[in-house]
Amino acid sequence: MKRLAILGSTGSIGQSAMSVIAEHPGQLKVVSLAAGRNVDELASQVQQFKPAVVSLADQAALDAFRTTGAASGCVTLCGEEGLRDVATHPDVDLVLCASSGTVALDAVLAAIEEGKVIALANKEVLVMAGQLMVDSARRSSAAILPVDSEHNAIHQCVNGRSADDVERYILTASGGPFRNWSEEQLELATPADALRHPTWAMGKKITIDSATLMNKGLEVIEAHWLFGAEPDRIGVLVHPQSVVHSLVEFRDGSIIAQFGITDMRLPIQYAFSYPERWRSPLPPLDLVTLGSLNFFKPDNNRFPCLELAYAALRGGAVLPPVLNAANEVAVSAFLANRLKFMHIPRVLEKTLDAAVGQFFSAPKSLSDVRELDAWARSFSETVVGR
Amino acid sequence: MKRLAILGSTGSIGQSAMSVIAEHPGQLKVVSLAAGRNVDELASQVQQFKPAVVSLADQAALDAFRTTGAASGCVTLCGEEGLRDVATHPDVDLVLCASSGTVALDAVLAAIEEGKVIALANKEVLVMAGQLMVDSARRSSAAILPVDSEHNAIHQCVNGRSADDVERYILTASGGPFRNWSEEQLELATPADALRHPTWAMGKKITIDSATLMNKGLEVIEAHWLFGAEPDRIGVLVHPQSVVHSLVEFRDGSIIAQFGITDMRLPIQYAFSYPERWRSPLPPLDLVTLGSLNFFKPDNNRFPCLELAYAALRGGAVLPPVLNAANEVAVSAFLANRLKFMHIPRVLEKTLDAAVGQFFSAPKSLSDVRELDAWARSFSETVVGR
Repeated sequence: MKRLAILGSTGSIGQSAMSVIAEHPGQLKVVSLAAGRNVDELASQVQQFKPAVVSLADQAALDAFRTTGAASGCVTLCGEEGLRDVATHPDVDLVLCASSGTVALDAVLAAIEEGKVIALANKEVLVMAGQLMVDSARRSSAAILPVDSEHNAIHQCVNGRSADDVERYILTASGGPFRNWSEEQLELATPADALRHPTWAMGKKITIDSATLMNKGLEVIEAHWLFGAEPDRIGVLVHPQSVVHSLVEFRDGSIIAQFGITDMRLPIQYAFSYPERWRSPLPPLDLVTLGSLNFFKPDNNRFPCLELAYAALRGGAVLPPVLNAANEVAVSAFLANRLKFMHIPRVLEKTLDAAVGQFFSAPKSLSDVRELDAWARSFSETVVGR
Repeated sequence: MKRLAILGSTGSIGQSAMSVIAEHPGQLKVVSLAAGRNVDELASQVQQFKPAVVSLADQAALDAFRTTGAASGCVTLCGEEGLRDVATHPDVDLVLCASSGTVALDAVLAAIEEGKVIALANKEVLVMAGQLMVDSARRSSAAILPVDSEHNAIHQCVNGRSADDVERYILTASGGPFRNWSEEQLELATPADALRHPTWAMGKKITIDSATLMNKGLEVIEAHWLFGAEPDRIGVLVHPQSVVHSLVEFRDGSIIAQFGITDMRLPIQYAFSYPERWRSPLPPLDLVTLGSLNFFKPDNNRFPCLELAYAALRGGAVLPPVLNAANEVAVSAFLANRLKFMHIPRVLEKTLDAAVGQFFSAPKSLSDVRELDAWARSFSETVVGR
């Protein structure tokens, strides 16, 4: 029986995780849940899974939750401290980090320090604080299991083989809704256009990142930290059908790939069941019905964000958090119709250039990371404003 | 340093193996070689690799070999006993079985009994004597590593995972040269048509088997013995590009696949290096240049041989060797223009039906296997004659 903490239980990944847990009552038990402000969904989860502890975004959300009547059987907390208590509860074996953005950074680091298994569905955490997390996991021997479908696929392809045998980690990208759009068309792309993702149903921020290919850029940075791979050993292949979730090329030229349907319940279940595999109620992938799989090189002219991520990764520890913060600002501005689609990479580039000129030193703590984040948000806001 | 015996060193797989060995002088050493009648090629191999022992098909071939002058530095043998001495030489760690047909059955079984690692590039050996080989390998703890590209791919995909986690082993098939031919066209197919294989350069017999899909049928039987899988757990997918060498579907719906260029040096090197992986001088697979991968269901109407192989496997221990023998007879007759292409499966079907009527008991020894083989050859010859 694995005992779980779910950070972000009412979000898209969180709800998928709860349905995986419901399918495996003999193997999985919910100890603690953390959510933001979706008190109705949390109340229904509490009634179904009976956790010992729950935490909400803040006191107002907690008060609202208490009115639902679901709070009676469990300890109720809120805020950053509540989130940390959920993640580090002594009964918890495995923490699923499915909260958005960087809200769970402190809680995840605390759970790593206690040696808990981390199932990581949030890429910002590694992009912001990869070095801190990897160093801490080395000290405590905590395992970090990737839930992002691409990195989860790579974990399945490597399957315990030596990193020395790996030549390249190859992340696949759907190419997003604008894969076949011309530069002229991209100049006029609206948020509504960008939110029509061809293969995955996801939140707004990640769907825009998918349209710019910045999502793949963040995943390159994530792969660097998860697999200890230098940027030159991480490749990206556009694969519109999104059924080959990623590939690993070994030193003898052999490539191992993982295929599956596009449903996040599969990588979540894999992270929960690892090293075992459990049956899933989902239909298997049917390659015959699919018929054809295609592979293309990413086009760096139309989608410059991917190369910006490589540049940030090559530029040292300061730039990835700066890139991430600037991207959050630029995507928000695009969604609010304050920034054109093709100006997103320009905001990122200007912010990265400015960061290089600031001679920041590499972040040694979460507060260093937060300082970089705040500087980058503020700087990129002024760039957007121009 | 691994010390090798190569059975069939002058054949197509044998020559590829020798080139892999030449690339890895620090890791591989040739102890013994067995060949048929290609004395010039064997003489050149002996000069390059300096084995301690060589064996040829028979006394005439041995005499011819002695005239080349290459024989001076090594022990020279011939016939079935010579082959057995090559395979069981006390200095040998790993035996590559790359001889054709069933000539090496006795030698391979003797090597298994001595606990040597068997790299198996010959499917007839398992089709004829799978139960004997598996039983013997269990007693001696000998490992059998598949070299056939499909089974080698499956070995890479499973990578030590539990067989209980596997839902299906999926062998890919190029579909052969007649993949898009109509039944009417197939009625008129000539040996020259059938020998134009689209993706793999191989010997004549296996190329015809590839055109009838019997090659895939024999591989289904081979997979049954190698992976202990029941027929319903072994699938076949037509994949014309032949770069996905095979796939394994796990119980959670995840599929792991192995990709590579179509060059037998890769699976041979994998079997030699396992559990390590070594660099290869071959170019890596380029999925972008390839562009598109396709998958189809095999057409059992135009290619009935595949279903005959499943039927033989389901029919118990007697039928696979009967099928194999009848197929060798039918393919020879087709190559000699004595049998039409679409009559190959009819010969097999009639011979299988007749074997069921004979109430043979399951083969318990090599001589039982040879008896079945002889009966099936003789019976199928009479069917061809009609």
